[in-house]
Amino acid sequence: MTEGKRYDAQTLTTFVEQLFETAGADAEVAQVVTRVLLEGELLGHRTHGLNLVSRYIGGMLTGQVKASAGLLEQVSDSGISTLFDGHYVLGPYCVSRALDSAAKGATEQGIGIAVVRRASHIGCLAAYLKPFTDRGLVAMVYSSDPSVGLVCAHGGIDPIYTPNPIAAGIPTRGEPILLDVSMSTVTLGLVGQCREAGSPLPHPVLMSNKGQVTDDPADFFTTPPGSILPLGGQAFGHKGFALAILVEALTSGLAGHGRKDAPDQWGASATAVVIDPRFFGGLDAFTDESSFLSKLILASRPVDPERPVRLPGQAGLKLREQALREGVSLAQKVVDDLNQTAGQLQLPALS
Amino acid sequence: MTEGKRYDAQTLTTFVEQLFETAGADAEVAQVVTRVLLEGELLGHRTHGLNLVSRYIGGMLTGQVKASAGLLEQVSDSGISTLFDGHYVLGPYCVSRALDSAAKGATEQGIGIAVVRRASHIGCLAAYLKPFTDRGLVAMVYSSDPSVGLVCAHGGIDPIYTPNPIAAGIPTRGEPILLDVSMSTVTLGLVGQCREAGSPLPHPVLMSNKGQVTDDPADFFTTPPGSILPLGGQAFGHKGFALAILVEALTSGLAGHGRKDAPDQWGASATAVVIDPRFFGGLDAFTDESSFLSKLILASRPVDPERPVRLPGQAGLKLREQALREGVSLAQKVVDDLNQTAGQLQLPALS
Repeated sequence: MTEGKRYDAQTLTTFVEQLFETAGADAEVAQVVTRVLLEGELLGHRTHGLNLVSRYIGGMLTGQVKASAGLLEQVSDSGISTLFDGHYVLGPYCVSRALDSAAKGATEQGIGIAVVRRASHIGCLAAYLKPFTDRGLVAMVYSSDPSVGLVCAHGGIDPIYTPNPIAAGIPTRGEPILLDVSMSTVTLGLVGQCREAGSPLPHPVLMSNKGQVTDDPADFFTTPPGSILPLGGQAFGHKGFALAILVEALTSGLAGHGRKDAPDQWGASATAVVIDPRFFGGLDAFTDESSFLSKLILASRPVDPERPVRLPGQAGLKLREQALREGVSLAQKVVDDLNQTAGQLQLPALS
Repeated sequence: MTEGKRYDAQTLTTFVEQLFETAGADAEVAQVVTRVLLEGELLGHRTHGLNLVSRYIGGMLTGQVKASAGLLEQVSDSGISTLFDGHYVLGPYCVSRALDSAAKGATEQGIGIAVVRRASHIGCLAAYLKPFTDRGLVAMVYSSDPSVGLVCAHGGIDPIYTPNPIAAGIPTRGEPILLDVSMSTVTLGLVGQCREAGSPLPHPVLMSNKGQVTDDPADFFTTPPGSILPLGGQAFGHKGFALAILVEALTSGLAGHGRKDAPDQWGASATAVVIDPRFFGGLDAFTDESSFLSKLILASRPVDPERPVRLPGQAGLKLREQALREGVSLAQKVVDDLNQTAGQLQLPALS
């Protein structure tokens, strides 16, 4: 990937916020969405970072994606259980509001949950978590998209549901543990990248529309389409399949809006659950335990001496820390797209 | 497996309750534990069914396992968030009380959570769920055991944590979806069975203490011991590993009692989370969605035409229905063990 120059995080924040605001976003929405996308970039999730800015603004300009805070509708609220209808407002704003709502419940009574239906694209789940672990909270996010079917049932051929990630932030005495894993073997992104690169997938995790397991991305992009195997693959795919059904239930099921409604527009169902350890064994006992487990894991003898065992999120947090210290290195393609969007909006280019 | 005759479920219930009571259990504890173990048996989980009765009573007679309801201590309670200390009371009683507590929170405010530390052996998580799905609730149970290390970190050699299952019951318009999956590729039970049978594991999912992936159970039972690969195996084990860490956090982390305490007695940390869909999109919308997804899944073309795609829990619920209709068929070994325990307690044998 061609690297451009390094940018100060504050410079990027100001620049991207202005893009969103000029394109019509409320200031609050622009700030939250910018923070989440920059966080994805900082953590090294370059497919879910600032590359999404131009896509999101493109959606706003065609009217498919909304950016007004007032459109995010609170459908019901018990104090700790909340349902929002996103009405296709920018997803990072919807999910952040859901997490804030769940965190409020957690700090008041130990746990809170908020469900969002019809959020626009929500980016990278790992990017939402650190503000909550910084407060000593355990934060979880689940998501699915009822308008899309990519992954097969265990033992089945046809694509039915989405990769349905589970993400969680777990506080420790040091850096948090940040996990963000899909319940499929791979995501559509990797399948598409391999097709573009003309290379097979690293593992045979696709199912052709004839029921053959394959590593050839061409077998996915057929009519009818192929599918992606659940986490666990052929041998243990019943586990990833079962967990994916749970994610569907926690997201689209609770949302009351899902595959039964046959939505024709890309739109996520997302559920945030936040827990405050202070209501159980206490924050000290919690972080003592999570730190102890972390040490056990990091002390584990590695299979490959060149690759020490790492905690989930550890590599991303290191990249984040480096980027905040040395500046954010953006791919030239991302800079070009940002500047093209700035031009469209008659704003100056990124300096 | 040698099959004995079929027994009426009520006959078994009365017989097993009497064993527990005579061995010193409170009537309430005897009833709950019997119901959970019989339910495991009915669902076809024969390693987590009535075969456990003699083992549990053996533990009671040596004093390691407690059976007094009053010993289950409620350490804290916010109304929806509760921490119990099981003090090694029979696990099915501890987990059932935790689920009841979480369900109370759910029906009052949408979600409830209860964490138990130091429960004795808790059996099969799938066996707890149906009473809650029958009430239109989504019920989840997570568990780990901080006194045991069996599974390696992704990329690591040493055994660190337990298989850490996630179980969930999801209501539909018909039978519920019941899932119960470990975050490891296989459980210790299967490794032990293969060693006894002198056969390799069906897949190479063990790690020798030298860092070699193997299907030979002998490579697990070494000094120092081998380990079990996380769900996802060598290619995607970072996902099972990450989810297992989340289960550790939700169980031992919240419990404030875990690996840091180096417990020397087998004892589970278990967490129950119950959600009431009525506080979100409503129960009808929830079951419409879960039933719609179920139909999509069941209509999926199977890879093997002889093996139609099934929902998690479907096979077990069919066995359950058959056993309730035709009687429960117990393995002769289980009948013999039950009768030996009855003899020890000077009670009549199972008729």
